[in-house]
Amino acid sequence: MTSRSNFVYSTREHKFILKEWLDTRHILDLPKFKDYYSLDDVDAILEQAMKVAKEVIAPTNDDGEAIGVRFENGKVTVPPSFKEAYNFMQENGWGMHDPDSEGVLPRVIRAACGEYFTGANCTLGLLTEGAARLIATYGRDEDKRRYLPKMYKGQWGGTMCLTETGAGSDVGASVTKAFATDVPKVYKIKGIKNFITGGDHDYTENIIHLLLARIEGATSGTRGLSLFIVPKIWVEEDGSLGEPNDVVTMAIEHKMGIKGSVTAMLNYGDNDGCRGILLGNPPNEKGVAEGIAQMFQMMNSARHGVGQMAMVLATVAYNNAVAYARERVQGAAITNPRGDRVPIIKHEDVRRMLLNQKATLEAMRALIFKNWYYIDLANESDDPVEREAASRHIQVLNPLGKAYCSDMAWTLIADAIQVYGGYGYCEEYPAARLARDSKINSIWEGTNYIQALDLVGRKWTLEKGTLFGNWLAEVGQYIDRNQGAAGLEKEFAMLKRAYEAYGEIYAAGMRYWQTDPRLVAAFATRILHSTAMMYCGCLIADQAMIAARRVAELGEGHFDYPFYQGKVISARYYIRNVVPFVSTLAEIVASGDTSVVDIPEEAF
Amino acid sequence: MTSRSNFVYSTREHKFILKEWLDTRHILDLPKFKDYYSLDDVDAILEQAMKVAKEVIAPTNDDGEAIGVRFENGKVTVPPSFKEAYNFMQENGWGMHDPDSEGVLPRVIRAACGEYFTGANCTLGLLTEGAARLIATYGRDEDKRRYLPKMYKGQWGGTMCLTETGAGSDVGASVTKAFATDVPKVYKIKGIKNFITGGDHDYTENIIHLLLARIEGATSGTRGLSLFIVPKIWVEEDGSLGEPNDVVTMAIEHKMGIKGSVTAMLNYGDNDGCRGILLGNPPNEKGVAEGIAQMFQMMNSARHGVGQMAMVLATVAYNNAVAYARERVQGAAITNPRGDRVPIIKHEDVRRMLLNQKATLEAMRALIFKNWYYIDLANESDDPVEREAASRHIQVLNPLGKAYCSDMAWTLIADAIQVYGGYGYCEEYPAARLARDSKINSIWEGTNYIQALDLVGRKWTLEKGTLFGNWLAEVGQYIDRNQGAAGLEKEFAMLKRAYEAYGEIYAAGMRYWQTDPRLVAAFATRILHSTAMMYCGCLIADQAMIAARRVAELGEGHFDYPFYQGKVISARYYIRNVVPFVSTLAEIVASGDTSVVDIPEEAF
Repeated sequence: MTSRSNFVYSTREHKFILKEWLDTRHILDLPKFKDYYSLDDVDAILEQAMKVAKEVIAPTNDDGEAIGVRFENGKVTVPPSFKEAYNFMQENGWGMHDPDSEGVLPRVIRAACGEYFTGANCTLGLLTEGAARLIATYGRDEDKRRYLPKMYKGQWGGTMCLTETGAGSDVGASVTKAFATDVPKVYKIKGIKNFITGGDHDYTENIIHLLLARIEGATSGTRGLSLFIVPKIWVEEDGSLGEPNDVVTMAIEHKMGIKGSVTAMLNYGDNDGCRGILLGNPPNEKGVAEGIAQMFQMMNSARHGVGQMAMVLATVAYNNAVAYARERVQGAAITNPRGDRVPIIKHEDVRRMLLNQKATLEAMRALIFKNWYYIDLANESDDPVEREAASRHIQVLNPLGKAYCSDMAWTLIADAIQVYGGYGYCEEYPAARLARDSKINSIWEGTNYIQALDLVGRKWTLEKGTLFGNWLAEVGQYIDRNQGAAGLEKEFAMLKRAYEAYGEIYAAGMRYWQTDPRLVAAFATRILHSTAMMYCGCLIADQAMIAARRVAELGEGHFDYPFYQGKVISARYYIRNVVPFVSTLAEIVASGDTSVVDIPEEAF
Repeated sequence: MTSRSNFVYSTREHKFILKEWLDTRHILDLPKFKDYYSLDDVDAILEQAMKVAKEVIAPTNDDGEAIGVRFENGKVTVPPSFKEAYNFMQENGWGMHDPDSEGVLPRVIRAACGEYFTGANCTLGLLTEGAARLIATYGRDEDKRRYLPKMYKGQWGGTMCLTETGAGSDVGASVTKAFATDVPKVYKIKGIKNFITGGDHDYTENIIHLLLARIEGATSGTRGLSLFIVPKIWVEEDGSLGEPNDVVTMAIEHKMGIKGSVTAMLNYGDNDGCRGILLGNPPNEKGVAEGIAQMFQMMNSARHGVGQMAMVLATVAYNNAVAYARERVQGAAITNPRGDRVPIIKHEDVRRMLLNQKATLEAMRALIFKNWYYIDLANESDDPVEREAASRHIQVLNPLGKAYCSDMAWTLIADAIQVYGGYGYCEEYPAARLARDSKINSIWEGTNYIQALDLVGRKWTLEKGTLFGNWLAEVGQYIDRNQGAAGLEKEFAMLKRAYEAYGEIYAAGMRYWQTDPRLVAAFATRILHSTAMMYCGCLIADQAMIAARRVAELGEGHFDYPFYQGKVISARYYIRNVVPFVSTLAEIVASGDTSVVDIPEEAF
């Protein structure tokens, strides 16, 4: 019997991605990194991270469900083992740190290490980084001095407080208020926020909330929101802890999964004693504030991380399902029904489910890492043209990674459950919990509909459509350039067809913006999925071209032959069994069925 | 806030199905029913069942998770409220009863009532019926006298004991043994069974296990298995309770969902004190026994019930999501972004998710009830030709109902979770639990791969292929006959296209049986889904033709207009947005991609 905490993961795919597929050498040659790391260090870094994940983090994972987070006598606690592992991570350089300090790893490498940590226990730790980044970007020097050192050390946690009971996807409906005081930049805060991840806990001595509130007189909607630093315990000018800041935990949520993660409802200033420090400027004369734009700076990479979390959990499920399928013996082969019973990995439907997981996960990982690569370039390149070009890619890839990966994780993990049969439904085995844990990812950091609208409403139309148009043209050129690639002729021909089908989707979508925007909205989710499938098909084919060459070089006896052969087959499977759905979706979108908008509300 | 127990359901769809769509009158005119019920009674029966579901059963549902089933000091208990509701159901004629007694309802009507009971608490009660049916069919008169009266009264429970730790899908690998005694028909039983639903509990004073075991000397595999009546407490010839029968509960499973349902591991005869009564004959001179064939008599309707359970849980999720979407106000309409905030049911993607659920659920319910209708005919018709024809339909529809409904429920409930946003992930709201509860249905009573193999391996080839060929031809004739149906011209044209695409799937599948059976197996699940989508499209179009006429008759002001209009739109949505995937699947199946069989095992 496999324990729930069973963390089965491999560094092999990341070594391929970082050393054979992406031009990681180019990243490592950038001024920020070149004195610290070379491509030769990648293996050691990944192996070290894997060791930490296996030995330090994975053993804590069961406690997330067995003990869980608790809210008793007004205090929230996390399992003791979580705190130990958190401290270990901080002390050993794997935790929160200053991203601008010397010797940090490129994101594309950190992201690989992060997969092992997330896979070992997706609820361990805090989301301090986003909060710290906002203070680093928009804070005054004194704010940075006051908060950042201890946040970067992991001594204080950080949160993002956007949501309220009446303001979820509709952030602009927030009713939390801020009132000016006699002290410049200091405001009194009053309001209730909910669904705050890491909103309360006993990991750290203090929690620094980055909170959206409306300053008296600011305009309605998102444009009137300002961003505040609201510490749980007030921080004196010298950085020492002062009095509690009137931030009271009202409740924590009882969730389907991620039970080791605190989701808190927080009451700010119920006794009129809550103070916050404004980031940036107060609202202008029209009442327009800066908070939402500031928050969005952080949202993009957070969203990308959500897509990756979904992919990681589905990978853990897949890896465990493979291990189980190799061991579990049931039934004879269909080609030899009177023969011996065989491990179920030999049964065709089990192989189909495993290959569907493997191929889709590799396609998703290609998307995620392509984006991390661009994120490194956009942040660290010394060439402004390269930075700008990378930023444009990120604009398109971000909503795809978040929504496609989180939607797919649900069905991929269902395949893993199914491989286990009845044991997949038992919580002693890992698959059921991974489905529960992963489901949050289609919801938080902007629901997948918000991602879809971001794609078709914003990314399609940015810069009068040239940003997306150029991206799409580049994809088309890539496909054309590789028609006839050795061993992948059929795959590139099918990608060409999917690309043309996608052109119909794009044309229909742009037309609907003119004729009936409700139809773009009705098709938005399916358009996002089509975009992701078409593009993921290209990325996995790109990997397969490298893998095919390695297959030829290595020959069948080589220990690494199955890895490369497997990658070629993943691409073949994904392009022949998943990508064709782009054509069906094109037909559906182009036909402009109006059922969704026609149905009378009373008919539901 | 909605309570988890929130049972939201309607009788409207069943009234349509029973009184307008299916020829229920014909069933009610059969000799078994004609003296008891007429079509005019349907409304009252459904309303009465709904009242019981709401008032008696639904209030117990939370206890299934809050209290759950417990195994302490060797005894298994269910929540006390479950026992009260169980007793109420028995005492008021809604529980277990003799299906051959006077005044029983046709299955097609009972199945509608059953939806309300299942929807209100899917874990309440026992699966005594299947066990009793087996005794009724294969038992001696003395067995029937000894067991059936108390089973039919619900005073004793019943189970099906097939699975063992090493014998899940591979039932033939069972190692539970039976040894003849001096008493004719009585055997000593020795072995361990697991995953036994209702295997132990305190609902009833005794539990009658119907258990598969291998009599010494019988052949290996499923053909060597015999079926035994194995009571938990021995039953004397006069029907009174004797000594405990050495059936010991070893453990109960901790499952992802259905936590109010006992899933037990049972040890039979560990102290050599367990006796069972053989049903039918001992193995013949070749060691071939009768057990598996007997068991299959019961499996068919059990499988069908599993598909219905999945549909019911997805319906409860949908109904709750609709109620939430009407109330929850977030964001302005896309056509009026500066206007007031609106209930989210006005947002296009929410409407898409709701309509996808509504349409698919109606398509699935049409499939399920079409099959119940045939099951009534096959069992009760006084015309042998009609009985035989109905049986042939059942052969095809059974695996479709079980596997298609249970696979779809997972993604439909994900849509319901997504409508709720963050609240969908909180266990105080109903959607998360419904996803967890429903997941079992793709696994138990034969995994969905077993259903798919049943379709392509057995049903396609029965009677040299004529059974399925005739079924398929009938479907084709139906589609041809209705080309040009008023208001559904495009829908029937699209069904024709799907039918032709399905023809390619069928031809390719039959070809693979000759050339490479591994490919049929690799495509079996997708073939089953294609079959179901194509056929469900026909059924929902059939309903839409009736609904379209009613729309025209009633006019827009009528209170029932939205119901019928909604049914027409459901059909339009399903046929235009779901059925087209049959064509993609046809292309995929016909292309014969061999990735699934090619990939080296080490590459997973």
